[in-house]
Amino acid sequence: MNKAAATQEAATPAAHRHIQHYRIAFSDCDPAQIVFFANYFKWFDTASREFFTACGIPSWRDTERERGIIGTPLLDAQAKFLSSATYGEDIEIETFVERWSNRSFVMHHVARRGDTVLVEGREVRIFAIRDPDDAKRIKAIPIPEDIKAACC
Amino acid sequence: MNKAAATQEAATPAAHRHIQHYRIAFSDCDPAQIVFFANYFKWFDTASREFFTACGIPSWRDTERERGIIGTPLLDAQAKFLSSATYGEDIEIETFVERWSNRSFVMHHVARRGDTVLVEGREVRIFAIRDPDDAKRIKAIPIPEDIKAACC
Amino acid sequence: MNKAAATQEAATPAAHRHIQHYRIAFSDCDPAQIVFFANYFKWFDTASREFFTACGIPSWRDTERERGIIGTPLLDAQAKFLSSATYGEDIEIETFVERWSNRSFVMHHVARRGDTVLVEGREVRIFAIRDPDDAKRIKAIPIPEDIKAACC
Amino acid sequence: MNKAAATQEAATPAAHRHIQHYRIAFSDCDPAQIVFFANYFKWFDTASREFFTACGIPSWRDTERERGIIGTPLLDAQAKFLSSATYGEDIEIETFVERWSNRSFVMHHVARRGDTVLVEGREVRIFAIRDPDDAKRIKAIPIPEDIKAACC
Repeated sequence: MNKAAATQEAATPAAHRHIQHYRIAFSDCDPAQIVFFANYFKWFDTASREFFTACGIPSWRDTERERGIIGTPLLDAQAKFLSSATYGEDIEIETFVERWSNRSFVMHHVARRGDTVLVEGREVRIFAIRDPDDAKRIKAIPIPEDIKAACC
Repeated sequence: MNKAAATQEAATPAAHRHIQHYRIAFSDCDPAQIVFFANYFKWFDTASREFFTACGIPSWRDTERERGIIGTPLLDAQAKFLSSATYGEDIEIETFVERWSNRSFVMHHVARRGDTVLVEGREVRIFAIRDPDDAKRIKAIPIPEDIKAACC
Repeated sequence: MNKAAATQEAATPAAHRHIQHYRIAFSDCDPAQIVFFANYFKWFDTASREFFTACGIPSWRDTERERGIIGTPLLDAQAKFLSSATYGEDIEIETFVERWSNRSFVMHHVARRGDTVLVEGREVRIFAIRDPDDAKRIKAIPIPEDIKAACC
Repeated sequence: MNKAAATQEAATPAAHRHIQHYRIAFSDCDPAQIVFFANYFKWFDTASREFFTACGIPSWRDTERERGIIGTPLLDAQAKFLSSATYGEDIEIETFVERWSNRSFVMHHVARRGDTVLVEGREVRIFAIRDPDDAKRIKAIPIPEDIKAACC
């Protein structure tokens, strides 16, 4: 990285970050008494949407009506489970966009209970419209520049 | 099967594979009309357990009572979403153990609708007992050799 | 069966009944080791739809496109929990329409494990279209006669 | 408050009431774009537990260890669906105990979006321990007087 870039990076303020608070429910846990892992993927998905809401992006219902965008389906989801949690515990999920590409972006999530990191997750997402040739299927579009700008 | 193929198979015995059939329900789908992705993680988890059942491993309830093993919690889960599916469609999930290590193993899942691959998933799992120092937490143990032997 | 019973049966023709089979998954159960009760409502909902499918009714996706019907939302749901069940157990859900009114109908569900009745449920449902005045809301319509006829 | 009202209130002391706030997530909704009804039962269950927490009752994990009580399983659950809601909307759930009997009690829940009542629910619950004769099953006990006293 040359000096100009370094300077620019120093000047580039930290990306938007969103914090979601959640108290774990009895029914979020399985017979092993701990959070059933797939719930983290659900919570990360909600955190992704809340991130957009915090950046001022209208609901996907509105974007579908106005410009056909039905949301940000996933190409890939991955999570590393570092520590377990159980019901009655309060957690928070920190969310930010780690990388923007032309047709996809990476959301990064960290779930914590106090200082303990519970789960780290990454989602590779696209922006999608309904497939004009088959209403049962969906289709990727290039990242909408205005949405990206609102989130950086 | 010709002789060469038979020989090769003897040298690399086919791992156990389990096929799980499922019809997608209305409530498995989200407002984008497609399966909410986190459900695949739930179905993969069920397929993992059904794999063990097909190999003759007792329920985790029984293993907990008999030897403390509460199940196979995840260190890592990852899925690649290749094609979407919707309610009323019949899918199948093929499951096998891709790799056994000393303290963890990798389960591989492929969800298909007919010949179309929908989702490919990998889970890194451990065998766990309850943490003797904290009943709210869990603890990894070495892979039980008898269980591994039953699954290979 | 004696003649009186046969006559009575002729006067009250057996309604269509649908049987749904399901093996309870680990993640269907809560830390009390038993099925989390709300899952029965999900399974009853699926059984309701499978009942319609067995009667030849197209998917709600098709009915929405063809005649605006988005499905059969609930006015009321009720369940009585008689016996608990846990993961690895096989259950079946028997479903039939108990009563048709002008604008609603009652579905009856019985979940059993072998001869043991686990849960009895009733759903009061309507047929709905999207509210023409507010796309975020829905609206009841009279029971479609052709659908009722196909289910009796 | 005038004197008559004050007298009446003294005669019928206000029961504990708990308010739970929740923002509806995308994945709480189904392809009809509205909350999948069974989620209300899950939220009511969580609200029931949060009610007890607000009254100072320890977690069921602690009560199981200390006195065998695994929680408050349901005998009956019922809900009336009055208005639909969708993702991004903020709702609140008001919860109180409507009636205490010797071996069961009735929890009443009202879900609202602003002034609009969405769902009214009732749960008939017992206090349970694990069945000493069959660890896979559960068993009702009389209402623990100390817990009842803490909630009135």
